[in-house]
Amino acid sequence: MYERNSVAELAEALKRELDRYSPGEKLPSSRALVERFRVSPVTVSRALATLAAEGLVTTRPGAGAFRTAPHAAPVRLGDTSWQQVALSAESAAEAIPRAVDATGVLTTLAEPPPGVIELSGGYLHPSLQPERALAAALGRAGRRPGAWGRPPIEGVTELRAWFAREIGGPAGTLAASDVLITAGGQSALTAALRALAPPGAPVLVESPTYPGMLAVARASGLRPVPVPADAHGVRTDLLAEAFRASGARVFVCQPLFQNPTGAVLADERRREVVRVAREAGAFVIEDDFARRLAHEDAPPLPPTLASDDPDGIVVHVCSLTKATSPSLRVGALAARGPVLERLRAIQVVDSFFVPRPLQEAALELVGSPAWPRHRRNTAAELRVRREALLTALRRELPAVTADFVPPGGFHLWARLPDGTDEDALAAAALRAGVAVASGRPSYPAESAAPHLRLSFASATGVAELAEGVGRLRTAFEDVAGR
Amino acid sequence: MYERNSVAELAEALKRELDRYSPGEKLPSSRALVERFRVSPVTVSRALATLAAEGLVTTRPGAGAFRTAPHAAPVRLGDTSWQQVALSAESAAEAIPRAVDATGVLTTLAEPPPGVIELSGGYLHPSLQPERALAAALGRAGRRPGAWGRPPIEGVTELRAWFAREIGGPAGTLAASDVLITAGGQSALTAALRALAPPGAPVLVESPTYPGMLAVARASGLRPVPVPADAHGVRTDLLAEAFRASGARVFVCQPLFQNPTGAVLADERRREVVRVAREAGAFVIEDDFARRLAHEDAPPLPPTLASDDPDGIVVHVCSLTKATSPSLRVGALAARGPVLERLRAIQVVDSFFVPRPLQEAALELVGSPAWPRHRRNTAAELRVRREALLTALRRELPAVTADFVPPGGFHLWARLPDGTDEDALAAAALRAGVAVASGRPSYPAESAAPHLRLSFASATGVAELAEGVGRLRTAFEDVAGR
Repeated sequence: MYERNSVAELAEALKRELDRYSPGEKLPSSRALVERFRVSPVTVSRALATLAAEGLVTTRPGAGAFRTAPHAAPVRLGDTSWQQVALSAESAAEAIPRAVDATGVLTTLAEPPPGVIELSGGYLHPSLQPERALAAALGRAGRRPGAWGRPPIEGVTELRAWFAREIGGPAGTLAASDVLITAGGQSALTAALRALAPPGAPVLVESPTYPGMLAVARASGLRPVPVPADAHGVRTDLLAEAFRASGARVFVCQPLFQNPTGAVLADERRREVVRVAREAGAFVIEDDFARRLAHEDAPPLPPTLASDDPDGIVVHVCSLTKATSPSLRVGALAARGPVLERLRAIQVVDSFFVPRPLQEAALELVGSPAWPRHRRNTAAELRVRREALLTALRRELPAVTADFVPPGGFHLWARLPDGTDEDALAAAALRAGVAVASGRPSYPAESAAPHLRLSFASATGVAELAEGVGRLRTAFEDVAGR
Repeated sequence: MYERNSVAELAEALKRELDRYSPGEKLPSSRALVERFRVSPVTVSRALATLAAEGLVTTRPGAGAFRTAPHAAPVRLGDTSWQQVALSAESAAEAIPRAVDATGVLTTLAEPPPGVIELSGGYLHPSLQPERALAAALGRAGRRPGAWGRPPIEGVTELRAWFAREIGGPAGTLAASDVLITAGGQSALTAALRALAPPGAPVLVESPTYPGMLAVARASGLRPVPVPADAHGVRTDLLAEAFRASGARVFVCQPLFQNPTGAVLADERRREVVRVAREAGAFVIEDDFARRLAHEDAPPLPPTLASDDPDGIVVHVCSLTKATSPSLRVGALAARGPVLERLRAIQVVDSFFVPRPLQEAALELVGSPAWPRHRRNTAAELRVRREALLTALRRELPAVTADFVPPGGFHLWARLPDGTDEDALAAAALRAGVAVASGRPSYPAESAAPHLRLSFASATGVAELAEGVGRLRTAFEDVAGR
């Protein structure tokens, strides 16, 4: 609202001044525009993007913005207003929303504008990514004969076997044939939800939960139904009634280092989840995205739900991406019984298969000496960063406290004082130069209590974490003042 | 039916004999089993897969089949029968089918069993793929700093710009900002269909058309409605009535080297398609998958529909994959207006983004001297192979004729004598050692006339094409004899 007016105003001002620049000439730097117009870096970025979309300006990452040269003719603008009608056309089942809300996903995916500290990211900072090992793995993989050919539809067999061992554990209860390779965790979640629930169906979810999963569910025409969760994971005492009341046949569960709370599902609740689902004739989607993100001081990890599931209640989802690098989009689905065929069919039909070089690079990486070194380094670093963020909060912003200290994952689920507007605070934080995630998109329905989800993985290091908290305090005082 | 009994019988026979082999010991080779049991290679392959699924046998590609060693405990078989009920649960809108039929897709994706000649493949034979150039491109891409980081959500800017020039043509009517990078053409089609049509909605399609698109549409709960096509593409005289009668707001069109017929949409019909869609308030999905598959003797290619579309009627889909290699899953969506935002949101929510190293490798490849060389080589080779297949058909199997000679793409759409059972012929062909695609899955409804879709791209060369036609003749005589 206020933000969007600034963007439109700045875009107008820049448009009026464009004549001062020859075609192809460089416009003032982002920093100069911030100073001159007294707006935030993100406003400048968005205003330039507006002009770029109209073909008036060309932005080149790292180089700056330029008045568009004449040979690159501006796009002929026709009249696309008719599309709004077409895209809003009544759906066959009225319960199905037509808009696709990608906000919750974009928050963690998109890089913030330059100069903005990133406490919102869902990925390891590049300095923590095993870049050299990945480059080497990809080089070796790319040179193999047949490296670019078709992999088997279900994935390279060795990689399926590796995931089967990882997911099934030492008891070896999962076979390679129970595993499908996917293009990362999000693709696996998408396939699982679409396989298990028809459009219009309810699906039980933890509340709060991972906003990206809510976005997928809604985009697929599903209706997320919240089941409250606490420090020990989902409230299994409420689960049976939730199945009964909603008629849902799917529950999406994150038993380990839940996003956003970081909770680990208590032992007795683990058994309950599977038992209650079985009685309801339902599936449990086990989203095990954070298994490789344990901190150095985490207690021994519980096994996966999928490792003890002979009746095929559990559809397991996991991925290598968060533990390595955003572009290593290699994940897995594991399931038993007829549902595996349904999953395979959906995956095949939607996107065929995962490029062979990526699969081979993943195999090379996890089979190299660099892998255990990287795992240990990640575990140690995440612990250091977690503590640095907690310390900075206690020191600078004691009104904002973590519900509890997570022993794994990237996030702190930070409770705000009652009555705080989470979205307004996140917007103010962005203007103050730090990107944080409002807790609101994590709830399928209304927020139980205002939170921020703070990531400690994507900042450059502990100094930036502290600086980020300082900027957050500025924003907090700003919002509290009103 | 007959085939499946053979598989089950062989699986039983092998199971009974398993005790002859120590755990971990190698079973007889595929060839030996074919000889001994007098069944086809595909029967052996499937029977072994059945035993592998039960954990009794472990297959290692290239090495053979082995009795499962004891430490790899057979998967504990629980009772997954309950899943059938859960997966069949009534959908909210009864018109939406629940099963996902991947048959049409798997035919072109899966490698046939060893010894079977592949006239069904949707990819270039490895000898035609630019493997060295790809390996070099990937190596260079992987070594760049930040190669494994997050690309911009919409794709690497340079790659978007490259596609914009390719799709928009020399007039430069498409900007990089109108383009989204996707994980190949199938992902782009999936996003386009899901963006434009709600579950339960009708979507107009050419008849016949690409079975993989029908599979995506059905899996997304859409209802394909056929519009007949002939040697000059879709029958535009029937298009307006089809929109009216069905209420569809999407038409999926392949204007260039249509799959399966190879037809090129006649000039006057190109304008008609867009005009009729505009009057119906509908979108046209332009599936331009074959643009880079023109044969050496093709006439000059028409521009894309998207290159002259100021009102944003057209959503353009294309990909580098078929012209290069199955694992270079890099494609693009191009559109103008509010629909672009809808496409972006769906793509982001479903699968985030395309791994950066793949995008950079694609850029390196199309910017290298190897690229034009590869294009010329592909055009020449495809022409040679097309002619070899036509010649072999005329000589060995004159009862089967191509409807017309396509100037691009991978397929011949071969007409069978009236009354031929296309599926039975394809099954007989497989038993005879050649994989072909029945024409039936190409039709949204019933076959207009029996056809086979024969690919000349995936065989090893002209000799194998001729041998394949010989085996097809055997199967044809077999089926005709009954």
